[in-house]
Amino acid sequence: MKIHIIQIGKTKDKNIEELVAEYIKRTSPYAKVEFTSLNEEKLTSSKRKEKIIEIEGEKILKNISDGFIVALDEKGEQFSSMDFSKIILKQKDLGEKITFVIAGAFGLSNAVKAKANLVLSLSKMTFTHEMARLFLMEQVYRAFSIIAGKGYHNE
Amino acid sequence: MKIHIIQIGKTKDKNIEELVAEYIKRTSPYAKVEFTSLNEEKLTSSKRKEKIIEIEGEKILKNISDGFIVALDEKGEQFSSMDFSKIILKQKDLGEKITFVIAGAFGLSNAVKAKANLVLSLSKMTFTHEMARLFLMEQVYRAFSIIAGKGYHNE
Repeated sequence: MKIHIIQIGKTKDKNIEELVAEYIKRTSPYAKVEFTSLNEEKLTSSKRKEKIIEIEGEKILKNISDGFIVALDEKGEQFSSMDFSKIILKQKDLGEKITFVIAGAFGLSNAVKAKANLVLSLSKMTFTHEMARLFLMEQVYRAFSIIAGKGYHNE
Repeated sequence: MKIHIIQIGKTKDKNIEELVAEYIKRTSPYAKVEFTSLNEEKLTSSKRKEKIIEIEGEKILKNISDGFIVALDEKGEQFSSMDFSKIILKQKDLGEKITFVIAGAFGLSNAVKAKANLVLSLSKMTFTHEMARLFLMEQVYRAFSIIAGKGYHNE
């Protein structure tokens, strides 16, 4: 199946980049993972937070095609790794692509939230978007390991 | 102030090791972070999960001295990064050392939970203990940035 991760801002940290690449590689027998990094808007006196959220939201929506949309937000719904794997399994069985959206520093626009089939929270804590990408990829790999009945989840 | 992190199992991944080292360095103006890695017990036919949890728990307790004890557990209490910084600030003001405990693959013993002042959940999802260490250190650094009024939290 196809997994598409859209994020605002590039991953600059090479350690995180390598860890994410490793989880994509481990996930490759189960799913093809594609990334889209969109430029973040700069805060200026005329361009305030709300405006940035709106512009970044429009860019995200232009990059979303069909399938099941999961937007990441601290205030979203939380799942155990086991329940998260069931969400992925259901879409896999339906033949749907899953798109994950990681917002910029100021959060998700209402338009993106409205488009999402699920608003997912990894934690109540705030992480950098680079860390969110790493946590998400580890959970995506973990989910496929659970589906495939591999030992990784209980290692 | 002093932060002590006790974990079962060594961090083998060099990318995670470097990321953790970076957060310890960034935290150094605010707190001295010390790590203790304890060997994990091997699962054998005669040594089952419950026994491993108990033995690892005893090893953890031997390494805990005074101060405020925070044990990490998926089923613990969750906090926002802001509220987590308040917990740290309170102990800093009291002059207390904080010890964080990251359990092995099979979880925390009841004895460790009983000894803990707080059972903290970073997420409902399960992470490797290496990842948990990274997430925790990023949140510890973030907490001190919030306390110091630095911009990191809203970057």
